[in-house]
Amino acid sequence: MAQFDMPVTELEQYTPEIDEPADFDEFWSGTLAEARAFGGAPELERADIGLTQLTVDDVTFPGFGGHPVKAWLTRPAHAEGPLPAVVQFQGYNGGRGLAHEHLGLAAAGYAHLMMDTRGQGAGWGAGGATPDPVGSGPSSPGYMTRGIEDPRDHFYRRVFTDGVRAVDAVRAIDGVDPDRVAVAGTSQGGGITIAVAGLSDGLRAVLPDVPFLCHYRRAVRITDAFPYGEITQYLHVHRSAEAEARTWRTLSYLDGVSFARRAQAPALFSTALMDTVCPPSTVYAARNNWGGALPQIDVYPYNGHEGGAEYRFARHLEFLAEHLM
Amino acid sequence: MAQFDMPVTELEQYTPEIDEPADFDEFWSGTLAEARAFGGAPELERADIGLTQLTVDDVTFPGFGGHPVKAWLTRPAHAEGPLPAVVQFQGYNGGRGLAHEHLGLAAAGYAHLMMDTRGQGAGWGAGGATPDPVGSGPSSPGYMTRGIEDPRDHFYRRVFTDGVRAVDAVRAIDGVDPDRVAVAGTSQGGGITIAVAGLSDGLRAVLPDVPFLCHYRRAVRITDAFPYGEITQYLHVHRSAEAEARTWRTLSYLDGVSFARRAQAPALFSTALMDTVCPPSTVYAARNNWGGALPQIDVYPYNGHEGGAEYRFARHLEFLAEHLM
Amino acid sequence: MAQFDMPVTELEQYTPEIDEPADFDEFWSGTLAEARAFGGAPELERADIGLTQLTVDDVTFPGFGGHPVKAWLTRPAHAEGPLPAVVQFQGYNGGRGLAHEHLGLAAAGYAHLMMDTRGQGAGWGAGGATPDPVGSGPSSPGYMTRGIEDPRDHFYRRVFTDGVRAVDAVRAIDGVDPDRVAVAGTSQGGGITIAVAGLSDGLRAVLPDVPFLCHYRRAVRITDAFPYGEITQYLHVHRSAEAEARTWRTLSYLDGVSFARRAQAPALFSTALMDTVCPPSTVYAARNNWGGALPQIDVYPYNGHEGGAEYRFARHLEFLAEHLM
Amino acid sequence: MAQFDMPVTELEQYTPEIDEPADFDEFWSGTLAEARAFGGAPELERADIGLTQLTVDDVTFPGFGGHPVKAWLTRPAHAEGPLPAVVQFQGYNGGRGLAHEHLGLAAAGYAHLMMDTRGQGAGWGAGGATPDPVGSGPSSPGYMTRGIEDPRDHFYRRVFTDGVRAVDAVRAIDGVDPDRVAVAGTSQGGGITIAVAGLSDGLRAVLPDVPFLCHYRRAVRITDAFPYGEITQYLHVHRSAEAEARTWRTLSYLDGVSFARRAQAPALFSTALMDTVCPPSTVYAARNNWGGALPQIDVYPYNGHEGGAEYRFARHLEFLAEHLM
Amino acid sequence: MAQFDMPVTELEQYTPEIDEPADFDEFWSGTLAEARAFGGAPELERADIGLTQLTVDDVTFPGFGGHPVKAWLTRPAHAEGPLPAVVQFQGYNGGRGLAHEHLGLAAAGYAHLMMDTRGQGAGWGAGGATPDPVGSGPSSPGYMTRGIEDPRDHFYRRVFTDGVRAVDAVRAIDGVDPDRVAVAGTSQGGGITIAVAGLSDGLRAVLPDVPFLCHYRRAVRITDAFPYGEITQYLHVHRSAEAEARTWRTLSYLDGVSFARRAQAPALFSTALMDTVCPPSTVYAARNNWGGALPQIDVYPYNGHEGGAEYRFARHLEFLAEHLM
Amino acid sequence: MAQFDMPVTELEQYTPEIDEPADFDEFWSGTLAEARAFGGAPELERADIGLTQLTVDDVTFPGFGGHPVKAWLTRPAHAEGPLPAVVQFQGYNGGRGLAHEHLGLAAAGYAHLMMDTRGQGAGWGAGGATPDPVGSGPSSPGYMTRGIEDPRDHFYRRVFTDGVRAVDAVRAIDGVDPDRVAVAGTSQGGGITIAVAGLSDGLRAVLPDVPFLCHYRRAVRITDAFPYGEITQYLHVHRSAEAEARTWRTLSYLDGVSFARRAQAPALFSTALMDTVCPPSTVYAARNNWGGALPQIDVYPYNGHEGGAEYRFARHLEFLAEHLM
Repeated sequence: MAQFDMPVTELEQYTPEIDEPADFDEFWSGTLAEARAFGGAPELERADIGLTQLTVDDVTFPGFGGHPVKAWLTRPAHAEGPLPAVVQFQGYNGGRGLAHEHLGLAAAGYAHLMMDTRGQGAGWGAGGATPDPVGSGPSSPGYMTRGIEDPRDHFYRRVFTDGVRAVDAVRAIDGVDPDRVAVAGTSQGGGITIAVAGLSDGLRAVLPDVPFLCHYRRAVRITDAFPYGEITQYLHVHRSAEAEARTWRTLSYLDGVSFARRAQAPALFSTALMDTVCPPSTVYAARNNWGGALPQIDVYPYNGHEGGAEYRFARHLEFLAEHLM
Repeated sequence: MAQFDMPVTELEQYTPEIDEPADFDEFWSGTLAEARAFGGAPELERADIGLTQLTVDDVTFPGFGGHPVKAWLTRPAHAEGPLPAVVQFQGYNGGRGLAHEHLGLAAAGYAHLMMDTRGQGAGWGAGGATPDPVGSGPSSPGYMTRGIEDPRDHFYRRVFTDGVRAVDAVRAIDGVDPDRVAVAGTSQGGGITIAVAGLSDGLRAVLPDVPFLCHYRRAVRITDAFPYGEITQYLHVHRSAEAEARTWRTLSYLDGVSFARRAQAPALFSTALMDTVCPPSTVYAARNNWGGALPQIDVYPYNGHEGGAEYRFARHLEFLAEHLM
Repeated sequence: MAQFDMPVTELEQYTPEIDEPADFDEFWSGTLAEARAFGGAPELERADIGLTQLTVDDVTFPGFGGHPVKAWLTRPAHAEGPLPAVVQFQGYNGGRGLAHEHLGLAAAGYAHLMMDTRGQGAGWGAGGATPDPVGSGPSSPGYMTRGIEDPRDHFYRRVFTDGVRAVDAVRAIDGVDPDRVAVAGTSQGGGITIAVAGLSDGLRAVLPDVPFLCHYRRAVRITDAFPYGEITQYLHVHRSAEAEARTWRTLSYLDGVSFARRAQAPALFSTALMDTVCPPSTVYAARNNWGGALPQIDVYPYNGHEGGAEYRFARHLEFLAEHLM
Repeated sequence: MAQFDMPVTELEQYTPEIDEPADFDEFWSGTLAEARAFGGAPELERADIGLTQLTVDDVTFPGFGGHPVKAWLTRPAHAEGPLPAVVQFQGYNGGRGLAHEHLGLAAAGYAHLMMDTRGQGAGWGAGGATPDPVGSGPSSPGYMTRGIEDPRDHFYRRVFTDGVRAVDAVRAIDGVDPDRVAVAGTSQGGGITIAVAGLSDGLRAVLPDVPFLCHYRRAVRITDAFPYGEITQYLHVHRSAEAEARTWRTLSYLDGVSFARRAQAPALFSTALMDTVCPPSTVYAARNNWGGALPQIDVYPYNGHEGGAEYRFARHLEFLAEHLM
Repeated sequence: MAQFDMPVTELEQYTPEIDEPADFDEFWSGTLAEARAFGGAPELERADIGLTQLTVDDVTFPGFGGHPVKAWLTRPAHAEGPLPAVVQFQGYNGGRGLAHEHLGLAAAGYAHLMMDTRGQGAGWGAGGATPDPVGSGPSSPGYMTRGIEDPRDHFYRRVFTDGVRAVDAVRAIDGVDPDRVAVAGTSQGGGITIAVAGLSDGLRAVLPDVPFLCHYRRAVRITDAFPYGEITQYLHVHRSAEAEARTWRTLSYLDGVSFARRAQAPALFSTALMDTVCPPSTVYAARNNWGGALPQIDVYPYNGHEGGAEYRFARHLEFLAEHLM
Repeated sequence: MAQFDMPVTELEQYTPEIDEPADFDEFWSGTLAEARAFGGAPELERADIGLTQLTVDDVTFPGFGGHPVKAWLTRPAHAEGPLPAVVQFQGYNGGRGLAHEHLGLAAAGYAHLMMDTRGQGAGWGAGGATPDPVGSGPSSPGYMTRGIEDPRDHFYRRVFTDGVRAVDAVRAIDGVDPDRVAVAGTSQGGGITIAVAGLSDGLRAVLPDVPFLCHYRRAVRITDAFPYGEITQYLHVHRSAEAEARTWRTLSYLDGVSFARRAQAPALFSTALMDTVCPPSTVYAARNNWGGALPQIDVYPYNGHEGGAEYRFARHLEFLAEHLM
């Protein structure tokens, strides 16, 4: 079926029970404390890519384990005063790409930090530049099951921490107003956005589009599509009850629904009713459990995982203007 | 085979014989004269899309038949004097999209005109806004065979004319330096670029990336991929010798190789060795027949039709700086 | 699921609400009046294709806008008196083909008019010969969204009018009994059949097989398959609420369910339970809303869009004998 | 590659060496003698399918092993004197279908016998009615490897014999002129046509279109497509040198190239340059080895296995008129 | 949907009504009596395949019609006394393969008889060696519809009989304890296992994994996948009500659900929730109707048709140890 | 084309030039010295998996970096004296699986060590148990480009070292004759086999089947298939000349052709002419460059990447008997 998940009226009401470990908050506060203990500050190196109206900096900031994480910082060349900032996270397997790919927000007057995703950046697009210096146990190809045996080893524990540290970093940059920071991202970037929204204080706006990394159990039950399918692939090999329990336990520390419960900042979601990669019910599961005011959600009835795509820009500017300006 | 066409050493030497009708120049000079006879000037309406560093105008200019054709004109907000301009053409079945999708060239100090493609714009991306008020005879789905029975009726006669008129239009816009105009485009946009380069005088630079619409006969022989495959689909239905002859005759007025022979401006091509949509030999056929100095060509050995994609931006800025600044 | 739509017991009861514009009848009576005002009569040219038992005429009749539309008229060579006639419409993207492809009805004693579909005829089969001289706004490849911005511009307004005029034409041909005319078609041909049944008076039998062009809203919700998918493709690019509303409005003038409500002639439908191209519920939506007596419907439980195919011939002869002889 | 086989100029010269067993003629003369020894005559039962201009008989004739083989005989209702006849063989996995599917030749004044293929008729179309009462050793799904261990057991030994006996049968039918018989068929039907042309005396015309069952060794080397792929599938399981030798030996008794060498009647071939199912070089291998005058061959450069399809009808009538009238 | 069939709680309760012919038991007792009347005893020939710890015999035993059926018998080289035995049946289109492929059960101390499947063995794997000397009427490619017109002619009547005779054979072999015999198989092998469990007396354990050949009517309704899809393919050609009724009648003699009702031996099933080839509801239909104690069933939630695969070995050894040792 | 690579006669002569870094031997002798410096000995834990004729040990031995690597050691239960041993490596993305999957060689009297592949084991089969504790830079999904920026960081540097250490380990096990050790593997396992053959002294036999990891440059040029395609995917993102040069440099330390040049032990290869995953020319490139006597190579003309599969067992036993017994 083209619109294969619940109808919108049911989606609006969908608030499933999610397994949440008792020590979820402890796990994450410990994780963040540990990362911040490595200290360090963002380093900026001006990148001349031929623009006259915008400036670009090649940023390196300390992420999980103090590991250096790369980002592009793009800012208006002709603007004054501390700028509001948007931190953006990339989709699965892309990297931060080339600096000129992300000009819209800076052209609209924001400081825009595009975070690289560690270890990724060779699947599509123009590439990334951030290693993930941590190995893993047996895993299916991709990133969903790297470190699946223990939440402390899982890839997304590191990435979500990088995301929180990116917010820390942008706040520490000269010319950025630390009180006016938003986070945004599409797909995997949307999942990181939600996680960071649940883990960072004082954000002013949260913009997850067709977010991934939410409600894993339902996702693998209703869709074959990758990357949720990597979990299926792992479990289809590791068939023991122990492996299954261990897998769900690890993922329960990384579920967007649990982060959403803790998120307080105003949020604007989007989802698409033909999206088999990040099915709408998994998106609504996070949105309907939002800790703060129930977020707006734009629904694209005739789109797959591309969702609103370029149509999001105007909506984002509107929402940012309302909350950051 | 991954690299399925000729090896680079052969590509460099590949200068095939192309059927060219005796009245090719007459056909096109008549076509352009007719279009220009409709007169009209570009109309600009400022579009506020929330940018502070760049300005956007919604442009309407007279194309083939005097039909209104849409475009986005993006310019630096903080620049002086008549600007050099780049006219860009879109890929197959896309439209001019949303204005904020095309910021790089303006951010680098150019006036950038993104032409809409008539009748297209509902296949992918964010859409188009230009009708094609001309009907057609029996055709396979798509645009390659609309009007295939006669070159005067063919869809690309109208589109190439729109492209020439887009150059005319940008030259007539206040604040644009009419002596410093370049044309650019990818895939179909690259094909239009080559055609316009063969039909417009005084261009300063030509930037065709993985261009489509070149050397049709070879294309249908070596690739199944669409849109060249639309020709195959048409001929696989219209099996008579007359239909075949008529089809090749019509296309002989529209072949990028013939336009390339007439093109004099400096050009920078790109091609990809795994590109089954616009096979490298069809690209080299145009490049090797260039009327002016033999163009540079960047070869991407491990890419398909995406070619250099975002990697082209830096190369374009370099080439434009050399020829337009 | 192989049988993916409702079970037959539900299909039998399925009578959904369909949006119908208040001026539907006015729209169509105006359209037909306008077309008929062009006047003109069918022209027949005897085609010698080597048959001794049947005769073939190459017919040209005035369709929408008075445009010339082609058809094949096949008749028994050895028959007397005014003949009952069957007007048949072709499937999506086919044309009238070659004359010898349609011999069965003539061999059974009917005058058989096979109407060409304007603009189509290069997708499969042996081709068509009727241009569509009207252009369109931005559209996805194919015919479903040509003129989608306004019902007056839509492709199927022209085609349905051609269909009504084909009935007019056959009635004006010497040797045809104007009181004994039936319409028939498969897929797109079935959709045209239903439209003509709702727009032409005095038909004696209506034979839609696996008809297309019915209940568009449900179709795009439950199937990804083309050509309904062209609507989805269009909307997936044109994402604004206005574009969506405009699209549904245009299609509401072209929905087989609304034509069915107005149809009075006896009808024999067919549908197939594994047909994802024209899902059975969209077919039943038209059949269950039939203006005249509730039509018979033959259900093929193990077929896809091919439906009954050649098995329909005997059923058609039976039904035609009952109603036309 | 779209045109993946040799260019036409090479195809015209292609006369490969084919393994031919020393006792090929003995094998087949014995086979036919054995089949004819079963005796029997065709039985006709008039089938009323509602036609007034043509008559249809349901025919049963003795094939290989004297097994009853079904066919449809269609004739003009209004014709005199002994008629010339065309015996047609069906494509792979189809059956004789329904009687009204084959009207063209009868409408043109021929007696037309459409032979059913034993055991087939449930893959596509409207079905068949002839069992194959002979079992087989281990085989891959399909018919190519049934009885592959010994030429005497192979499926096509039985089918080719049925084909020869179909010619015998039609010659024995009242109202048919035994001296004016042609054979025709597409794909598998084309392969049977060639075999029968090599095994039957006195044929007046041979019409193989995109014929299958020729030059097996090359076919499996250059194409993955089924049904030649069934041989590959068999050999990919039965990997021993003995199995391979045995397989080629069996097929060497069934190769169209060997039958072509023995064929004397005038022939008209067709082939398509994008046909991966029956690659053009395998077709030319048979045509270029024809025993009689080098046959004409119509080449469809832009078609796959559908080849000329309906365009063949006019060519067939022309050729038949020349040789049978 | 990834888990496309009923949820486990519904599966546990699923006991559909199945058509069962009144003479089902008579049909099968007659069939077995007839087969046993051919007499004959298994013949063993020692096969030296280079093993020092196990022995292998190439077995030939009389199956349906007394036809010779092949099998591999593998036994521990260093074991005493009459051994318990496991008779195993192969998956669809595989053959008994090479002897060394089946070592686990023998290495665990069992006599292991791997039965070849007549006529199959050229689809995958290392091949088979048992002909099926019985022909068939028109059938779709594959084995599901060979002899579909009459249950007495159906392929699986012969195969199920072979399975019963394989149990008879192993009991007659020196060194095997006839009172301690189990049957096992995966997919088609699982279907044969269930049939044999319903037809053979005195079995000690039954091990069907992801069994095929159960609840045909539901299977074709909910899955497109082959080989159930062969039934759909047959019916999609043979569209008459008679053909459909005849088809279901034939299959009603061959349905695993009916065999399960008659089976008394302890059984251990397995199924996989993403198995579209043998959907879980069809497996549960057999398991929930088991004649003896309700069998255990292991459910693999994240697997397709591979089901538990190698994870079954330990479960099998456990179950066999409990019931055969 | 089904047989898409060179014909066998050319393959036999194919000895391409391969880039080999000047410090190749130094790189590897340093790598191995470093690994061996970690010391450690294999640890064996008896695994009772229910077998009576064979014994199984769960082995842990020190690999690259001294990291623990898992393996299964299977031996005859009833055998005397130090046994000859075969060390086997697994295919891409599989793990050592379950112990009972590998019984053939032990049943034939060999000690059989099945090495797990670090980090893999969740793609197919029954799983692995060896982590890869080393992270990586940006990489495409899969293992080919993990650490691609520097040969010292590359995944296969660790895996090949594990392989050499597996040979070291088996030689250190009680009951194994250290002078009679062979290495074997299929696909990735075959690539590791060749690497170990070039790096370990004193091997008695080398059995690479359809080996992967040879002649990378040609592989990516002629095939799209994964996992060679991971290199293409990486380069298609990382388009700079520097990235390309760096990639080829890294891979030049890991090319099977260079290892083959150093290998002295007798070897038996196999390849398949329809193998697009590990094209035959890449296999021959290694085989034709063998340091010792030119290895035998078994060619499977009708197989894809499955190659000889189970047919290899008999060939292996033969070759092992000749060289190890």
